Amino acid sequence: MFLRNAWYVAAWKDEVVEGALFARTLLEEPVVLFRQSSGAVAALEDRCRHRFAPLSRGRLEGDRLRCMYHGLVYDASGACVEIPGQDHISARACVRSYPIVERDRYVWIWMGDTALANPDLIPDCHWQDDPAWRCKPGYKHFAADYRLIVDNLLDFSHLSFVHASTLGGSNSMATLRPRIETFDWGLRITRLYPSDVMPPYAAALASYSSPVDRWQIYDWHIAGNVLSMDSGFARAGAGALEGKRPDDAFQFHSIQALTPETASTTHYFWTYPHNFALDDPSVTDMLANGISNAFEEDRVMIMAQQDVLNRSPDRTMFNIGADAAPMQVRARLEQLLAAEAAGEG
Amino acid sequence: MFLRNAWYVAAWKDEVVEGALFARTLLEEPVVLFRQSSGAVAALEDRCRHRFAPLSRGRLEGDRLRCMYHGLVYDASGACVEIPGQDHISARACVRSYPIVERDRYVWIWMGDTALANPDLIPDCHWQDDPAWRCKPGYKHFAADYRLIVDNLLDFSHLSFVHASTLGGSNSMATLRPRIETFDWGLRITRLYPSDVMPPYAAALASYSSPVDRWQIYDWHIAGNVLSMDSGFARAGAGALEGKRPDDAFQFHSIQALTPETASTTHYFWTYPHNFALDDPSVTDMLANGISNAFEEDRVMIMAQQDVLNRSPDRTMFNIGADAAPMQVRARLEQLLAAEAAGEG
Amino acid sequence: MFLRNAWYVAAWKDEVVEGALFARTLLEEPVVLFRQSSGAVAALEDRCRHRFAPLSRGRLEGDRLRCMYHGLVYDASGACVEIPGQDHISARACVRSYPIVERDRYVWIWMGDTALANPDLIPDCHWQDDPAWRCKPGYKHFAADYRLIVDNLLDFSHLSFVHASTLGGSNSMATLRPRIETFDWGLRITRLYPSDVMPPYAAALASYSSPVDRWQIYDWHIAGNVLSMDSGFARAGAGALEGKRPDDAFQFHSIQALTPETASTTHYFWTYPHNFALDDPSVTDMLANGISNAFEEDRVMIMAQQDVLNRSPDRTMFNIGADAAPMQVRARLEQLLAAEAAGEG
Repeated sequence: MFLRNAWYVAAWKDEVVEGALFARTLLEEPVVLFRQSSGAVAALEDRCRHRFAPLSRGRLEGDRLRCMYHGLVYDASGACVEIPGQDHISARACVRSYPIVERDRYVWIWMGDTALANPDLIPDCHWQDDPAWRCKPGYKHFAADYRLIVDNLLDFSHLSFVHASTLGGSNSMATLRPRIETFDWGLRITRLYPSDVMPPYAAALASYSSPVDRWQIYDWHIAGNVLSMDSGFARAGAGALEGKRPDDAFQFHSIQALTPETASTTHYFWTYPHNFALDDPSVTDMLANGISNAFEEDRVMIMAQQDVLNRSPDRTMFNIGADAAPMQVRARLEQLLAAEAAGEG
Repeated sequence: MFLRNAWYVAAWKDEVVEGALFARTLLEEPVVLFRQSSGAVAALEDRCRHRFAPLSRGRLEGDRLRCMYHGLVYDASGACVEIPGQDHISARACVRSYPIVERDRYVWIWMGDTALANPDLIPDCHWQDDPAWRCKPGYKHFAADYRLIVDNLLDFSHLSFVHASTLGGSNSMATLRPRIETFDWGLRITRLYPSDVMPPYAAALASYSSPVDRWQIYDWHIAGNVLSMDSGFARAGAGALEGKRPDDAFQFHSIQALTPETASTTHYFWTYPHNFALDDPSVTDMLANGISNAFEEDRVMIMAQQDVLNRSPDRTMFNIGADAAPMQVRARLEQLLAAEAAGEG
Repeated sequence: MFLRNAWYVAAWKDEVVEGALFARTLLEEPVVLFRQSSGAVAALEDRCRHRFAPLSRGRLEGDRLRCMYHGLVYDASGACVEIPGQDHISARACVRSYPIVERDRYVWIWMGDTALANPDLIPDCHWQDDPAWRCKPGYKHFAADYRLIVDNLLDFSHLSFVHASTLGGSNSMATLRPRIETFDWGLRITRLYPSDVMPPYAAALASYSSPVDRWQIYDWHIAGNVLSMDSGFARAGAGALEGKRPDDAFQFHSIQALTPETASTTHYFWTYPHNFALDDPSVTDMLANGISNAFEEDRVMIMAQQDVLNRSPDRTMFNIGADAAPMQVRARLEQLLAAEAAGEG
């Protein structure tokens, strides 16, 4: 169902505020996050070892967390350090703690085998925390299996239909067959649209108009479901598709991360950093709102798809040419899941 | 659970409007209906063959329907006629289409073996589309197994209790044992009430008062769950019960059709055509509202019954004399379902 | 799951009003209660023997209850005494009736083997119907297994945490290990707090202040889940903990009864009788509201616990010293349930 040996986005950095407890279900496990006096984020199983009361209804006492049902206290490692009225505390009276890395505005969590939690495996998301770029953090909750959203992100042919009036527009998006390169960590998908139409949201920003050269070059990291995408457009013929990005090009570097909440619900964390109009927050707002509206179109469609899927237990899907990338990722994901289940993860 | 080889009411004619897509679940299948340029209604499986997106979120392009997730296009026969970016289209890339007949203001659908879809099997419902009669289409959604509503319609003893203050009133309804005749297509039930009380809703319309002769003669069509009922009342002793309907008789011909939505929910389509006061729409309105209120009494009771039933998995019911007709229909329905399951449908 | 051979609280006396039908689900059975002309309460299975319509949607006709679906009539013993249109009535056409005892403002019901329904087994709850005491009846609905509430009531260490700002306050409640005595009917738990702090709600009432001697001495009746608690506080050192209750002591005798509605929901009936300020209803109100707010704290915590529990099917709990009483009761309850299942109940 889910890869456990992977770094997942647990929260936006700003969601975990000093002195407060933040509860979120991740990979079907209840987790409580809090910031220690050192500033480091701790993550514990949100279930008191004693009687399963949620620790997120507890009380932070310095760097320790007290369950407010019967008063057991845990430290940031999950060890129980106090049981009211009792001197001896068994070492088994602990809750699970999860490795956490805070980086690029994300709080990353490792839900699998702690011994394998190597921070070097975290994908580079620096664009969302870089002074040369601007963005606003986005979050959406999908009542859908995360794999339906993976499919969506790996096949941009849907832009021409789902987002006809927002992101997409041109039919070229639907018919183009992208270049797919395979790496250890996943896929790189390259979609180049020479001499295409300017996207609808951009008309107010650019000093030129259609035709433009558009590009979408995105890395899909299978572990943790992270998309990192270089995209944008420039005056047609100015060399942008050959890697020469002119000064008046409009460049983006979107980060999108999917963390399963349960088998049928997903947390979706995203930004859409841009490297122009850095001093005009209204542009950042306008772009973030536009993207949010577009992702809402995906959300509605994917949740409708999930609903039909739930009601179609005996039906099989039918693959088309546009499915090359999603099918490749699904196949590799299945292999990784099987390896984890076999204890090779 | 459901007979599949039967004509069911899918919709009111006016629900399927030119240029729009109409989605409804029928017999646990998602169906999308639309009107073609010829005026004929098409019905397709509401589930794109590709990734199960609902076609009812798609776009009508002439007589074709485009899925607005990845752009596949289907014609009214369910054949896929376009896959963006792809020349070859497999014949397997199709969705199911359903035979449709539009008649008597109903859109009839056949969800079973297409080869058996003979329009001659559709029960006569002309009264609801006849200039000599007036009615208003009614629709209710029941959170109940359609068979509980079948039971309800086949045993009018409930009128004295469920509808004591609306349709019923006299105790004679509860105690009368109707004449039951058996036909290929179902049952005819004859209930005659000589010299009875006038129904409460009629007091304002008639130039005479109780006693009246009342009658309810109804055909129950097992396939498709269709009731066709000749009912009314006339001055007592004027011969109405012997077939001589006087001019000042009040005559109705109600049509009621139950289409299972799921195993536990049902679409209920009905009219209550009357052949008097043809030029006074307020009478039609008043009667339709009164009937709707009465059917609401059934709906509340049947949904409460379903609720108790769900919570009583180990209990068996107890039959009484009034159950002759519902028990006969249940038994024949079971035979037909078994025959269909055995492939003899 | 539930002991059936036990007296449970079905309702507050005032909930069963003359001329009306009162429906409540108890131990997963639908029950309808009504008051006969003698004043005695009758309790019938809320499910017509015929077609399972709820009798609570029926009509009271004297001491008889008519199902308003098809008109069957039952007497207070559950025997069917009328079937419309039918002379012969089978003795099997009956619904179950339940033994009822009305005592101490409670309507007690016996859902098990009627032959064992001995009213002498009902715990004494006279304090809630005694002129020397004052109280207001309380009711709460918990979306939780009744056993989680049993655990809660048998371990008052939670007062220091769940009720830190209402009932509790002092840490002594959490650390004290109570005296536990075992009886046929259950446990007696004695918790004495010499020279402790006055509870927050009491500050406005007492003419003295902390320190006070506090006590909680409560009997837990396993059959029917009934708590009967002598509690209160007095000026420290005045002998209250040795049984000499001074005139200016504040004494309570709370009654709390848990009746399972379903496997995962519970009815909670309670009072908190006090024997001071008898002529000031505002004190009774203030105390009842305060207790209700405190029980709301339990309710929120226990329902959160149930929610975590539901999501943790493979986890086992961890016992601590404070669990002695709840564990003892759970063990005895399991024995009783096993005996009932084996037919020895």
